[in-house]
Amino acid sequence: MRNTKYTNIAASAFVLLLLLTTIAMAGDPNGSNTYTDDVAGMKLAVNFAWTLIGAFLVFFMQAGFAFLGAGALRVKNTVNYFAKSYMDFSIGALAYWAIGFALMFGGSKLYAGLEDGNSIIGWSGWFLSGSSYDVSTMMFWMFQVVFAATAATIVAGACAERMKLQAYLIYSGIVTAVIYAIYGHWVWGGGWLATLPYGVGVRDFAGSGVVHAVGGMVALAGIYLLGPRIGKFNKDGVPNAIPGHDVPMIVMGTFFLFFGWFGFNPASTLAATDLRISVIAVNTFLAGAAGATLVCYYTFFKTKKVDIALTCNGALAGLVGITASCAYVPTWAAVVIGVVSGFIVMYGIKFNDWVLKVDDPVGAVAVHGYNGLWGLLTVGIFADGTYGGVSGLIVGNTSQIIAQLIDMVVVVVWAFGTGYILFYIIKKIVGLRVSPEEELTGLDLGEHGYSAYPEFVIAGPMDGLREGQISDNLECSTEGART
Amino acid sequence: MRNTKYTNIAASAFVLLLLLTTIAMAGDPNGSNTYTDDVAGMKLAVNFAWTLIGAFLVFFMQAGFAFLGAGALRVKNTVNYFAKSYMDFSIGALAYWAIGFALMFGGSKLYAGLEDGNSIIGWSGWFLSGSSYDVSTMMFWMFQVVFAATAATIVAGACAERMKLQAYLIYSGIVTAVIYAIYGHWVWGGGWLATLPYGVGVRDFAGSGVVHAVGGMVALAGIYLLGPRIGKFNKDGVPNAIPGHDVPMIVMGTFFLFFGWFGFNPASTLAATDLRISVIAVNTFLAGAAGATLVCYYTFFKTKKVDIALTCNGALAGLVGITASCAYVPTWAAVVIGVVSGFIVMYGIKFNDWVLKVDDPVGAVAVHGYNGLWGLLTVGIFADGTYGGVSGLIVGNTSQIIAQLIDMVVVVVWAFGTGYILFYIIKKIVGLRVSPEEELTGLDLGEHGYSAYPEFVIAGPMDGLREGQISDNLECSTEGART
Amino acid sequence: MRNTKYTNIAASAFVLLLLLTTIAMAGDPNGSNTYTDDVAGMKLAVNFAWTLIGAFLVFFMQAGFAFLGAGALRVKNTVNYFAKSYMDFSIGALAYWAIGFALMFGGSKLYAGLEDGNSIIGWSGWFLSGSSYDVSTMMFWMFQVVFAATAATIVAGACAERMKLQAYLIYSGIVTAVIYAIYGHWVWGGGWLATLPYGVGVRDFAGSGVVHAVGGMVALAGIYLLGPRIGKFNKDGVPNAIPGHDVPMIVMGTFFLFFGWFGFNPASTLAATDLRISVIAVNTFLAGAAGATLVCYYTFFKTKKVDIALTCNGALAGLVGITASCAYVPTWAAVVIGVVSGFIVMYGIKFNDWVLKVDDPVGAVAVHGYNGLWGLLTVGIFADGTYGGVSGLIVGNTSQIIAQLIDMVVVVVWAFGTGYILFYIIKKIVGLRVSPEEELTGLDLGEHGYSAYPEFVIAGPMDGLREGQISDNLECSTEGART
Repeated sequence: MRNTKYTNIAASAFVLLLLLTTIAMAGDPNGSNTYTDDVAGMKLAVNFAWTLIGAFLVFFMQAGFAFLGAGALRVKNTVNYFAKSYMDFSIGALAYWAIGFALMFGGSKLYAGLEDGNSIIGWSGWFLSGSSYDVSTMMFWMFQVVFAATAATIVAGACAERMKLQAYLIYSGIVTAVIYAIYGHWVWGGGWLATLPYGVGVRDFAGSGVVHAVGGMVALAGIYLLGPRIGKFNKDGVPNAIPGHDVPMIVMGTFFLFFGWFGFNPASTLAATDLRISVIAVNTFLAGAAGATLVCYYTFFKTKKVDIALTCNGALAGLVGITASCAYVPTWAAVVIGVVSGFIVMYGIKFNDWVLKVDDPVGAVAVHGYNGLWGLLTVGIFADGTYGGVSGLIVGNTSQIIAQLIDMVVVVVWAFGTGYILFYIIKKIVGLRVSPEEELTGLDLGEHGYSAYPEFVIAGPMDGLREGQISDNLECSTEGART
Repeated sequence: MRNTKYTNIAASAFVLLLLLTTIAMAGDPNGSNTYTDDVAGMKLAVNFAWTLIGAFLVFFMQAGFAFLGAGALRVKNTVNYFAKSYMDFSIGALAYWAIGFALMFGGSKLYAGLEDGNSIIGWSGWFLSGSSYDVSTMMFWMFQVVFAATAATIVAGACAERMKLQAYLIYSGIVTAVIYAIYGHWVWGGGWLATLPYGVGVRDFAGSGVVHAVGGMVALAGIYLLGPRIGKFNKDGVPNAIPGHDVPMIVMGTFFLFFGWFGFNPASTLAATDLRISVIAVNTFLAGAAGATLVCYYTFFKTKKVDIALTCNGALAGLVGITASCAYVPTWAAVVIGVVSGFIVMYGIKFNDWVLKVDDPVGAVAVHGYNGLWGLLTVGIFADGTYGGVSGLIVGNTSQIIAQLIDMVVVVVWAFGTGYILFYIIKKIVGLRVSPEEELTGLDLGEHGYSAYPEFVIAGPMDGLREGQISDNLECSTEGART
Repeated sequence: MRNTKYTNIAASAFVLLLLLTTIAMAGDPNGSNTYTDDVAGMKLAVNFAWTLIGAFLVFFMQAGFAFLGAGALRVKNTVNYFAKSYMDFSIGALAYWAIGFALMFGGSKLYAGLEDGNSIIGWSGWFLSGSSYDVSTMMFWMFQVVFAATAATIVAGACAERMKLQAYLIYSGIVTAVIYAIYGHWVWGGGWLATLPYGVGVRDFAGSGVVHAVGGMVALAGIYLLGPRIGKFNKDGVPNAIPGHDVPMIVMGTFFLFFGWFGFNPASTLAATDLRISVIAVNTFLAGAAGATLVCYYTFFKTKKVDIALTCNGALAGLVGITASCAYVPTWAAVVIGVVSGFIVMYGIKFNDWVLKVDDPVGAVAVHGYNGLWGLLTVGIFADGTYGGVSGLIVGNTSQIIAQLIDMVVVVVWAFGTGYILFYIIKKIVGLRVSPEEELTGLDLGEHGYSAYPEFVIAGPMDGLREGQISDNLECSTEGART
């Protein structure tokens, strides 16, 4: 162990020295060649400000994911979930800085230092060194890294309450650095999907596919390999609801995510001089509102109760659904998209519970995966031709939707496939799942040595499971875990 | 029930088809006619960015209201309060998109598609369709909708712990779509109050009246008709304090609101090219700080204790008090306004408790209603003539305050009056109040079927009420409810 | 008491009348002389917007400090900590408006009304009155006041769970108005440190020294004079860990702080036209990520557990460490700085526990104090000469580090020294510490009369202390308190 550590330190030092030597061939690290004191300079300044502030808002979504997810889980796994949520963006940032950004945008030629790559993969911009030490490239990296972190963190909730912390962190770094980055290259880095000969090629404005469907499909692979939590399914396969421990966290987390989405979507123009930002913001708001309203009333009319946790998922579903098309559609379409997203999330959760029989404690697969796919489709249906030359079915164009359908297939195959392989390898080498004993006690004590609320009195030892179920459930769980 | 649903869907589909046909006559949906690559274009871009980011900050106030309010209530009503807080902005957004915006800004001619209306009411811009499908109109809508949502959510806290969820949601949509919008038209939409022949007409910069007094006065009507919570008043009319369940939520919610207020007030210029934004930000900060400081020390000198929950209300009171005048007054006046606001909120709460004998669990009427009125008055007193041609008593102008006094009367009559009628109708048709049994058990189980913290052990069945009080209080409550 | 109050009111009224008369000699209170409708005006507008939004983000850090700190403390002191956290920025804002800003920036001539002062101290801009009633001066004040509030609030956590509320509030106002302001004048107000004849003079871009080291060193003086909490040290001097009560608050508070730091560092350019803002944002992100990652894995490899609370301190340590140098260094250096910061915070906490034997419940001295000093040093080491003419050791310049080393000594002497004197005086006059009985019961009941979570069942009377320790610890505590 000690030796490994020192080897690592030595290796790191070497890499750093290498990087140090590259400063000489930098791009424009202080903006003195980029900025001019005229209209062009003003345009740069307002667009830098807009994009960076957008990035900060997207960063804040990490707080939303953490709060929301933890609220939907049981007390005994709270510390663990926060640790995963916090560390995935930290490790992800370093991984994306070192590797992911270069794979994703190398060859895009969008900014200095991103010259090398082809339509499958990029290979320049490593460590933001050399000519990518440039104010514009950095601006772009800052916006991209927070998206990468979002994709990674989606998986945390789905795999919660039973996945080992270290398995999660390994996965998280690799997804950010490789799986997310390569697919992102195809759509946003000038790769083959962006240039498909249907419509204007695949369009995914702010990442229904790149971020949400990737996260959701990787999550689906993860929960398939992990198996359900002890107690999730009865012997006869009937799923049990396992309530979370803190409803305020769920709702507040949703507010935080909604707030951050105003960076996610509108700032994806990378420009405030693109005045379409206002339409994007409005569409984002309306789709989220419509998703929540649909779920709220649909469940109310069926059950006479309002399920606010599910309603929050309805809001997020609407937001995911509009993310790809937010720039291309009129406001009425945003409402329709949100309404459909609300149905998708409700029936998606049922589909996972009853058909796939996988266990997704926070509904991440339905919210991000299924609605991410729906988001890609909405571009092909509702784009009204007023922006970016993108036209869908509602204005009589039938070719854009072909590109979008291809993309939907690709993202499922890629993200589920590579996610499956990745989790499979991790499972064989370090193991994916904590022991049943640790799962029953909670991951907080096992992986962290302390609990989330040490002074509060918590009810009952089984946290939501009825006494008699324990041995049954242990058995179910073992059956449930695949491979 | 099923039939109603399908009828609704069909009706919606028809409306959407109608809207679809209107795309042809759009304004400038992508900015290509609005934006130019010169100083004028830069001005648009920086002002779009400023206004939209301001709108996002105001949106975040929804999170603040939810956290603050829930913290001030009892455990058993937490889910319900979050459901109300979350759904009011969702429904409100749809209502404001469909109806409210057109009523409020139709005829203002401020942006494309807002041509039709008179000094009493507007009637163009429905569904943001037709020529209001325009980047500038959308920018403006985005800023306005979050204000509308703020006005609506103020009522949630005052009516908490006893109002039926569905009654609240019906109210909420109608306030946003109609009551708020029509009064807003008079002040911000070029209506008759804005053009009163005193001073420069009514001025309410960021909405002490339009948002806060409207919300507060509707809330007052609501709690008058609802009656007090069981246990709030003893048989002899002496009010009991019913403590909230989570002080951290109260303080954090206040921080969130304060943060969002920096969008609320400074961004109400709709322009960063209006450099007065800095003065507005400073005044906002100082008034909030002064309100908190006054309440903190006033209660400390009287009781030797610091009541941080009341102090938070002092901060919010100062913020409400400065909202109308933030652009017009010097910094010393902001401090004075904040100090007076602190007194108003403390004595306003006492006035409600002891004189009106109404039950406002979070103090919303005092914070938003009474201080909203005070805010309108401050324009007439402290405006120093340096901005917008608005001058008050301190520089010897005695006519502006007349406009402001008229506005104060109008907002009380309008908001209390229409609020009373609305709640009265809802009361007669669907009922305002849950049953006493549900109130005692808590609205979470009755309206949602689950509690906020299912794993935590909660003390005692009566949540703050002493055993002996129950039957007495049931009786008081019945007496307390009016009409 | 009553007389004092009326005297105060009369005095205040007099001051206000004085100020009122100064309006006549105002700067440019509405921007009409500052703003022009051309490129120069656009530059002002985008930079005003950037700086103000940055200020709002820094304001939000107050929420982060409050949440984080409270989570790391015991239930029984939660209300008290929130009261301190909330009131310090309220009082601080008023103190900085009245006095601090004039001491700090008087004589800097940076904006209107800041003409008078020398290299030691400033004396113009009081109450933002006279010619400092100017849009540019106000913009600058808004950005500065939130930094002042940050410095003050750092102390709250270190002194938590035993310092009297009133002692804290007196301290807080004086630090903001005087101690922080005078040292700030030396570095940011054009004072003697900024103009030292080594390198380009002291550089502390966003305040590793001005904000964090000042806060941390004052905190060190405070906890030295206060003595440790009852139970922190055994009779043999061995420190006990006293766990906080709410891990979600700790992690969420860290997210909030991280988010706010994107205002703290990048907006310290006061200009979006300075495109280096992108590099600053990236460096900030990477240093925070590296600090967290280092602590996470270092503790994991040593203990097989991940300590997420300590990891959060690692993130904050990285952020403090990069704050002075964020504008001057390449990205690889940001990672190195973050890694070193992670070590500093871990060993800094041990040093305080085992060597200094002081009790810092939240690790504020290590996070802000020691890493603040490290931050100052990093400018001298890692500045690569690409920005602001600042060059450090890595590009062969050995003179900048001399300026930084001098600054490190100065800030320790100044902040610890004046902090010590201030706390000593407060101790002698009003007392620093609550009674042992109140400390055992908790400050919430003693200073506020209510507890944070009145409906939740809290475990055991001693909140984390084992029964037998009580009398021992009372004794230790008495021994522990100095002077």
